[in-house]
Amino acid sequence: MKEVKIYDTTLRDGSQGEGISYSVMDKVRIAKELDLLGVQFIEGGWPGSNPKDMEFFRKMFAHKLKSAKLVAFSMTRRTNIKAEEDANLKSLLKAGVEIITIVGKTWDLHVREVLKVSPEENIQIIKDTVKFLTSKGLTIFYDAEHFFDAFRTNRDYSLACLTAAIEAGAKAICLCDTNGGTLTSEISRVIGEIRQKFPGASIGIHCHNDAGVAVANSIAGVEAGVDMVQGTINGIGERCGNADLIPIIANLKIKLGIKCIPDGNLKNLTSVSHFISEISNMRVKNEQPFVGDSAFAHKGGMHINAIVKDPHTYEHIDPTLVGNHRRILVSELGGKTGILLRAKSLELDLSKEDPQTKKILQLVQKLEHEGYHFEAAEASFELLMKRALKKYKNFFELESFKVVIEKHTNKKLTSEAIIKIKVRGTKEHTAAEGDGPVNALDNALRKALKDFYPTLSEMHLSDFKVRVLDEKSGTAARVRVLIQSQDESDTWSTIGVSENIIEASWQALVDSVEYKLLKDKLG
Amino acid sequence: MKEVKIYDTTLRDGSQGEGISYSVMDKVRIAKELDLLGVQFIEGGWPGSNPKDMEFFRKMFAHKLKSAKLVAFSMTRRTNIKAEEDANLKSLLKAGVEIITIVGKTWDLHVREVLKVSPEENIQIIKDTVKFLTSKGLTIFYDAEHFFDAFRTNRDYSLACLTAAIEAGAKAICLCDTNGGTLTSEISRVIGEIRQKFPGASIGIHCHNDAGVAVANSIAGVEAGVDMVQGTINGIGERCGNADLIPIIANLKIKLGIKCIPDGNLKNLTSVSHFISEISNMRVKNEQPFVGDSAFAHKGGMHINAIVKDPHTYEHIDPTLVGNHRRILVSELGGKTGILLRAKSLELDLSKEDPQTKKILQLVQKLEHEGYHFEAAEASFELLMKRALKKYKNFFELESFKVVIEKHTNKKLTSEAIIKIKVRGTKEHTAAEGDGPVNALDNALRKALKDFYPTLSEMHLSDFKVRVLDEKSGTAARVRVLIQSQDESDTWSTIGVSENIIEASWQALVDSVEYKLLKDKLG
Repeated sequence: MKEVKIYDTTLRDGSQGEGISYSVMDKVRIAKELDLLGVQFIEGGWPGSNPKDMEFFRKMFAHKLKSAKLVAFSMTRRTNIKAEEDANLKSLLKAGVEIITIVGKTWDLHVREVLKVSPEENIQIIKDTVKFLTSKGLTIFYDAEHFFDAFRTNRDYSLACLTAAIEAGAKAICLCDTNGGTLTSEISRVIGEIRQKFPGASIGIHCHNDAGVAVANSIAGVEAGVDMVQGTINGIGERCGNADLIPIIANLKIKLGIKCIPDGNLKNLTSVSHFISEISNMRVKNEQPFVGDSAFAHKGGMHINAIVKDPHTYEHIDPTLVGNHRRILVSELGGKTGILLRAKSLELDLSKEDPQTKKILQLVQKLEHEGYHFEAAEASFELLMKRALKKYKNFFELESFKVVIEKHTNKKLTSEAIIKIKVRGTKEHTAAEGDGPVNALDNALRKALKDFYPTLSEMHLSDFKVRVLDEKSGTAARVRVLIQSQDESDTWSTIGVSENIIEASWQALVDSVEYKLLKDKLG
Repeated sequence: MKEVKIYDTTLRDGSQGEGISYSVMDKVRIAKELDLLGVQFIEGGWPGSNPKDMEFFRKMFAHKLKSAKLVAFSMTRRTNIKAEEDANLKSLLKAGVEIITIVGKTWDLHVREVLKVSPEENIQIIKDTVKFLTSKGLTIFYDAEHFFDAFRTNRDYSLACLTAAIEAGAKAICLCDTNGGTLTSEISRVIGEIRQKFPGASIGIHCHNDAGVAVANSIAGVEAGVDMVQGTINGIGERCGNADLIPIIANLKIKLGIKCIPDGNLKNLTSVSHFISEISNMRVKNEQPFVGDSAFAHKGGMHINAIVKDPHTYEHIDPTLVGNHRRILVSELGGKTGILLRAKSLELDLSKEDPQTKKILQLVQKLEHEGYHFEAAEASFELLMKRALKKYKNFFELESFKVVIEKHTNKKLTSEAIIKIKVRGTKEHTAAEGDGPVNALDNALRKALKDFYPTLSEMHLSDFKVRVLDEKSGTAARVRVLIQSQDESDTWSTIGVSENIIEASWQALVDSVEYKLLKDKLG
């Protein structure tokens, strides 16, 4: 079975995407997730270019990776200095990794207009850089920038650059379509030629999506003989992004039977894609191939009828292979089935014919229409079902709350919450401050409840997300708040939706506390 | 020069996309826009399937198209009845168009499991349907559903279906990758064979994006000999969508020099894409090839430096060819060049050596480290530069504000803001309510300023985004607020960052108002 190595550059080339800005801890979390997915190489950053990337490599000393190898990135030495004097190259030695990717010029246009050196000088720069680093015992991958543009316009020179890198000791040469404008047929033809010219070399491909064909180009590259594919998760990256590794991995494994990540990890593709979207603060693309929410969602009546008879009729693969699932849109049949499956997992006694089932479905449909999204808030959904089935009553009743936010010139803004609740017949009236209105409200609510429910001190909010739903109506837009809470043993998510962010946060806070108390069987 | 016909199915297959729901008037507006772009065929809908589509065709009698031809869609006759008795087919005759696309089964799996008829019976159904419609003087295109799956599993039968359609009088056969799972190399190979088998026939291709390669497949189809491409604008459609006609048209014309839409219309691609996104109530994808806001946006310092020397260095085409434009993003990665370019566009006098330039860069880096993100808030960045260069002073001074949010059981939450400001030496003290704390604050601020700056009544907030930055610290996390404002002539974006959402919103609100006043030259 043919094997291809997956080289992830989400943390370096991906971070050039508009709107992306990772903290060092974000980068560490992403690297660990990529390692669990089973990619072979993780390009962590450019240690010479900014202190954040250097700190990332330092932090990674403490995190042993299971299977992936960390790679540091840099460019060839600057003109007019020796390799050993180049600050960028020296900082690579401090990064503490064994593999270095060096990007170098291959296109004579760049050599002339950007580097402003002679073609021969550029060849010398490539050789010096690779030799210097290999002499330090490092493994070098050579990224030939703009290779396809270079080959198209000055074929001999582009080949001379590759030869220089290989002769200087590079372990792999990676052909980059840096501007992303090359079409698939040209990629196939050129890679075929390079494969023949350098029969023994390890060859990689690095595509960008400016022509909308980066995934197809990467796969065509593999079919034409490359053994390494560079890309990013979800295709994030500068301009139109890099080649998206998610469909590349899925297509290579499922369609072409090529070894790349371990078999058992394929089903993690959906969760890895969503995790990295979240950390990148990007919206998950519904229509993303293989892993999007709509990827296996059926809407047309003709399609739904056929899917029920045989899923192959309108699905190119079984969605569970990549950790995704089928969705039947706006269909009472599909809806009820989902609710029954969930009820079963909660050991709630509910059947398809039970009128309660229809009532819950109608409630869910109404709430989702208003902007709730129970897929992301399973604790709130469980409470909704149990409330509908009268399986518990609320742990407290709100009488009122008030939040006061004050700001005086040049002073820090203050937030204070005053709350009145009734618990087991007793009235509690208390107040607390916080870092913001929601934090103040959270503090006041716990303060009011703590004497009645001491286990609340075990839990804390671990995540807080706000999404504006219909962004076109200015500050009166509807907002969705998702809160994630945790205690020593569990993590749970709750939701609130309102035109008012405080109201939405309050709903999610209440659900979070009620879920904790219900879980502790205090009801 | 080779010529390919563009067949748009945004109004039919595109409308199957999750979240898409066009009114009849939406469909009319889209059809007129497609006609101006210059596509050859506009598939308007399925008149037999719903009254809305029939009404669309009726409405279109009144709208003469310049160059495109309207097409109506339907499936082959139902089993066990005559073609002339089929309600679907009869309704086609009422649609008043000259061209009909008929989709029919081609894959024996579907014939067996979905239609539940014999293979011979399906061939008869195809023949009857095409013959009936051609006998009425209509031109028929035959969409061979699941053609590539069919060819892979039962090649002879799939060919027999094509032959039946052609012999019955179909003017074109269109090969559909209905499940969207076929890879590019297989598309090329199969189309090559079909082209040879049916040398005289007009052949089309219709791809879906489930494997992430629909654009590449459509282009490979053209290179292998098809003369018609079916797809949708922005690739909308069921599951992962149809092939996106935007990059297909751009690639065919610019990269391959193939005639498809008139030369002069290529520059309308960006506006057509954005217009149809808006009508479809979909977010414009920033990273969409050719037409996205980020498609020619440069962020890395090395890229920005090279782009200034020669745009070809990091752009695959001239963005103005497709009606898009270059953007230089201001970020910590962009360095001094980004700031100087921006200063130049604002006619601010600033040079690379000016100590102010370094000061502004350091300020930007510090603020971006804290979570500001100026590439998304160009108005705030302009104010930052002008403040740093002492090019204006603030239009008002805040003394204090207070926001009070109150909730009583079962009553709607109320939000009230009280504000004290000083404008031109005069104190203003006023209050207002709103749909939430930010809306109340916005209302109070405008109320306090309106007598001094009447042009503020021209502006309103058009978009409000909240992002939680370090989501792992519960409700004390830092939030980034982005506000988009507009008046009759302009749209501008401002930003605020704080641990407190109200503080962050206040910063963005103040910038939004100051920008408007500065723009109106009231400073």
